[in-house]
Amino acid sequence: MTQSSKDVLAIGIDIGGTGTKYGIVNRDGNVLFSGEMSTKKHSTIETFIDELHEQLSVLIERAGGIDRIKGIGMGAPNGNFYTGTIEYAPNLPWKGIIPIAKLVNEKFKLPVVLTNDANAAAIGEMMYGAAKGMKDFIMITLGTGVGSGIVANGQLIYGHDGFAGELGHTIVIPDGRMHEGTGKKGSLESYASATGVRLTALELLENSKEDSLLRTADKENLDSKVVYDAAIKGDKLALQIFEFTGKILGLALANAVMFSSPEAIILFGGLTKAGDLILKPTREHMEENLIQVFQNKVKILVSHLKESDAAILGASALAWEQQ
Amino acid sequence: MTQSSKDVLAIGIDIGGTGTKYGIVNRDGNVLFSGEMSTKKHSTIETFIDELHEQLSVLIERAGGIDRIKGIGMGAPNGNFYTGTIEYAPNLPWKGIIPIAKLVNEKFKLPVVLTNDANAAAIGEMMYGAAKGMKDFIMITLGTGVGSGIVANGQLIYGHDGFAGELGHTIVIPDGRMHEGTGKKGSLESYASATGVRLTALELLENSKEDSLLRTADKENLDSKVVYDAAIKGDKLALQIFEFTGKILGLALANAVMFSSPEAIILFGGLTKAGDLILKPTREHMEENLIQVFQNKVKILVSHLKESDAAILGASALAWEQQ
Repeated sequence: MTQSSKDVLAIGIDIGGTGTKYGIVNRDGNVLFSGEMSTKKHSTIETFIDELHEQLSVLIERAGGIDRIKGIGMGAPNGNFYTGTIEYAPNLPWKGIIPIAKLVNEKFKLPVVLTNDANAAAIGEMMYGAAKGMKDFIMITLGTGVGSGIVANGQLIYGHDGFAGELGHTIVIPDGRMHEGTGKKGSLESYASATGVRLTALELLENSKEDSLLRTADKENLDSKVVYDAAIKGDKLALQIFEFTGKILGLALANAVMFSSPEAIILFGGLTKAGDLILKPTREHMEENLIQVFQNKVKILVSHLKESDAAILGASALAWEQQ
Repeated sequence: MTQSSKDVLAIGIDIGGTGTKYGIVNRDGNVLFSGEMSTKKHSTIETFIDELHEQLSVLIERAGGIDRIKGIGMGAPNGNFYTGTIEYAPNLPWKGIIPIAKLVNEKFKLPVVLTNDANAAAIGEMMYGAAKGMKDFIMITLGTGVGSGIVANGQLIYGHDGFAGELGHTIVIPDGRMHEGTGKKGSLESYASATGVRLTALELLENSKEDSLLRTADKENLDSKVVYDAAIKGDKLALQIFEFTGKILGLALANAVMFSSPEAIILFGGLTKAGDLILKPTREHMEENLIQVFQNKVKILVSHLKESDAAILGASALAWEQQ
């Protein structure tokens, strides 16, 4: 049976520290079927892939069977494009070097391409999103961790070993807050991730005497959503949390701009839902730290792709490009 | 009269904050004639170009006349490849936007290509030096200022506006030492440049009670050479100056590595003459700040091109590439 290329589909899988999103995508960038599962609860890669296969098989059947699928594109923290392995990912439950592309290929009997999750998102933005037509931009994902994908001269920067784009682990505050996953102090991810915002909230609550709605919040669930809800009610401490986070994010963005001079920085992920509460201080502190030649030139944009789609789209784009 | 391409020559000009080097180069990368003049003493770009023309004209005659010259390649701080202008260079005497490629073209009646001085050096290393055959590396020049040229996927990263590679202005110590040229606090250049080492020496002398050979040195001429001479005699304070500088440089290199994941970092310039005194702490602190996936992978190399040649070679390489 032959099929027109219009009928061919690709699978996109986005592995995050907390959850994994997957979907079946057509060439026009429509996510036809999608789902989500926990990453966290799988202490071994084998049970993770078993569940992924089980769940995806249902969607593959619904999409017309495995013969319609060209391949699988995967995005994962520390995912290596060249080797197909995830290596020492601090935010994933699996330690060491995981040959995930090989394992997924054996399970699904489909070609598999892997990259860093943020690189996948960058490709998604370039093909379908806010970076359409741009040749130089940086994608930054503000989720459980902080990831980045750098595009320069119209190409994704993989670096010599496939691991470029770990802006989240660059040190912004020397001897600053300890990152539990890496053991390093003062990295961007320690501040501008979901975990980072939570830690800032807990620290400010402890060190300040200011009255705050956050004092009555359940400490277990104190996340950027809770802080946001308080901030829009004018809670000073909550506003301070965003101001502090934006100050550090802005500094890191300034450093990134002075390095690769992108046309825009595309932000994506939970923290961006706070809108101007986080964007305003981020922009201000970015500009403040830029030397003159870079000032008032770089757009900070928020991804307008549906959060559930963007990473899947980006990952699936890898599958189209494979031979 | 026709000439074989073997006979065609190019001019390379490297404009630094203190001095400007120029030379006439053949296709094999031999600097046939070269010279040097002061940048600093020219408060206007016009008198600078007048002197440059006067000095170079002598060499051009010696090389067989202007008809043998294909073009001029120039490297300068904040030099823009796309527009041919130097824009707001904090370490040059000329402020604002200087259309230097146009002015030099009018004076010499030769095609002119401009880029950032460190970009030019990176091209020189890629064609003739330590980065031969590399597709991903970062060139860092440690001179009056700190410049950088980033090569990824075998291409120089210019950024959307032509100004990529200003690693020297990235902030490594938030609210750190003030940079007189930019007004920004805590940039790499404030510490790891010739000026930076001098300031560190003066600060340490003031804040420490330790006996030191540097206390008897002429404060006016206290530079990395003087510090080096004291350090190799075992002077503790001098050693501390290199340790401190290496700590900050190593941190900045770690951040650069986590961004673009180069195969090597090529260091160039006065500070590298201190050898292991600066390289050892730089390597140590780089490794210390890298997350595991990047550790023990990235070479820190010192350029082995003759200092007077490297920048001229790199700049001249631009002239070969022009149409």
